[in-house]
Amino acid sequence: MIVAVDAMGGDNAPEAVVQGAAEIGREQGIGVTLVGDERIIGSLLSSHRGTNHIAVHHCSDVVRMGESPLKAVRRKKDASIRVAFDLIKRGDVDAVVSAGNSGATLAAGILTLGRIEGVDRPAIAGILPGQKGPVILIDVGANVDCRPNYLFQFGVMGNAFATSCLGMVNPKIGLLSIGEEGSKGNEQVRLARKLLEKSPLNFVGNVEGRDIFTGEVEIIVCDGFVGNVALKLSEGMARAMMHTLKTELMESFYGRAALVFGRQPLKRYWRKMDYEAYGGAPLLGINGVGIVCHGGSSARAIKNAIKLAARYVRNKVLDKMLVQLKRSGGEAVHE
Amino acid sequence: MIVAVDAMGGDNAPEAVVQGAAEIGREQGIGVTLVGDERIIGSLLSSHRGTNHIAVHHCSDVVRMGESPLKAVRRKKDASIRVAFDLIKRGDVDAVVSAGNSGATLAAGILTLGRIEGVDRPAIAGILPGQKGPVILIDVGANVDCRPNYLFQFGVMGNAFATSCLGMVNPKIGLLSIGEEGSKGNEQVRLARKLLEKSPLNFVGNVEGRDIFTGEVEIIVCDGFVGNVALKLSEGMARAMMHTLKTELMESFYGRAALVFGRQPLKRYWRKMDYEAYGGAPLLGINGVGIVCHGGSSARAIKNAIKLAARYVRNKVLDKMLVQLKRSGGEAVHE
Repeated sequence: MIVAVDAMGGDNAPEAVVQGAAEIGREQGIGVTLVGDERIIGSLLSSHRGTNHIAVHHCSDVVRMGESPLKAVRRKKDASIRVAFDLIKRGDVDAVVSAGNSGATLAAGILTLGRIEGVDRPAIAGILPGQKGPVILIDVGANVDCRPNYLFQFGVMGNAFATSCLGMVNPKIGLLSIGEEGSKGNEQVRLARKLLEKSPLNFVGNVEGRDIFTGEVEIIVCDGFVGNVALKLSEGMARAMMHTLKTELMESFYGRAALVFGRQPLKRYWRKMDYEAYGGAPLLGINGVGIVCHGGSSARAIKNAIKLAARYVRNKVLDKMLVQLKRSGGEAVHE
Repeated sequence: MIVAVDAMGGDNAPEAVVQGAAEIGREQGIGVTLVGDERIIGSLLSSHRGTNHIAVHHCSDVVRMGESPLKAVRRKKDASIRVAFDLIKRGDVDAVVSAGNSGATLAAGILTLGRIEGVDRPAIAGILPGQKGPVILIDVGANVDCRPNYLFQFGVMGNAFATSCLGMVNPKIGLLSIGEEGSKGNEQVRLARKLLEKSPLNFVGNVEGRDIFTGEVEIIVCDGFVGNVALKLSEGMARAMMHTLKTELMESFYGRAALVFGRQPLKRYWRKMDYEAYGGAPLLGINGVGIVCHGGSSARAIKNAIKLAARYVRNKVLDKMLVQLKRSGGEAVHE
């Protein structure tokens, strides 16, 4: 099991990426191939211990955050994210993890590995910390405009991922809209609802913004524009609220006393808002395993994303997704 | 100054509505006309003191939550929300507040009072508690599909409301998208950006989901689908996080001690997430004053919404909006 990690991608790369890869250690049975500038990576690795599980694959280029994904991926043949997916294609590694330009990761994944059968548009599945457990929001940014059958396929892919990779049993699937009644929402949502209702999925109907955080519904389907706004809003809000709570408490003697007394419950509280628990968001629908991480990923997030990638491979999520896509029926999937 | 309040609208109506109206008291200089079943309202009023500022206007019907707004408003001529807007039209009251079916409130407002000049689609402006102060999110549910010029007009209306009703000075306006670059987002966002850039507004460009909660940008423009999801997500998350924090702290002796010591800072923390500070969301673009409240509004939310309606009237927000719409230019507004 080898996971290729884009060493040059992300705001804290390559330091945080190299550290995250090092923290995986040997006990996990995961080999890591760091893809990027071997001189820089080598010097960073020399300051870590127990890095026998890490190999380095040199490349000279990188896709920057502001670049147009498709153009950059096409032009820069030696960019770390392209080389990483090439390694999957050649059979040298099993999965790719990147905290770089997420559009470029998506584009490189599709260009290099292609889509799996039955999928019109691959999507990015965000894993959010719901109050009752993880909530999968799909899509969180790959497709700004979606046809009803794309949304339907997101549901099938989300279900396959949730059951085979996260161990969920018959997860409830909701369609994000602005009212619970079927008549609400826009045209694409109303049509997608009909497709989902006819499917063998455990579809519970429309859900609203307030349902994203509760965890009552485990998989929430939406287009990539709404999903991206929702993911970033909830991430930003969790961060801001943790920061505010700490700041308010630190400002007075009694507040600091409360921090001491409440250490354990506050820890549990903060863990419920942990957006790094899974480290990254899987790219569902490409013919391989790719995990997109937040640009600002810490070493811990990178480590958790590598573990998620390994679990994705070990649990044969791709095979199970193919089966579920076939089972959910041709007419419904392809309009 | 008289505010008509739909006594029959909302999950906690009429009890919470009557209580909220009673709490306004006389010192505010606001008269309240409760619109609804006079027998029920009368018996509830008898248990409150100091209600000389309250009048009752009887009507026999109500639009329920699940009803189709437009159909219900057209058919039910004696429904409380229709009668309330009729009172504005006849000049008997100055504004309407309702926690009932928000689609019906919007429909009744447009049907009864019409739109103001220069506005193609009225919108609902949510007022969120940002980290640095209130953030206006417009639209939060009136228009699921928006043309670029609607989004542009939302910006102008939001600016007029923010400056003349909330006292903001030259507020920053952002366009909600999924990346900061102008090339990101969907077609309507890219075109709306061009209109906003040419306008005299203090437009700062695209903003992302994470910017909704910070308060760095005071006005955020988006379509009603995305805005509704964002509003409900942030409301739900704030509620859930407050609940979780309290529950975790109450569960142990040390946690309860932390609650005692941290009482003041925790109060300040909770105040920062207060979604009832303004009580409701103004309907911008109708030719009159209407405030839409959350279905689950408490008496305090109703009270604050009545105060917001009164401030809207006193500050002549409507007149200022008309001037700003004219100033922002004909061609840009009407495609």
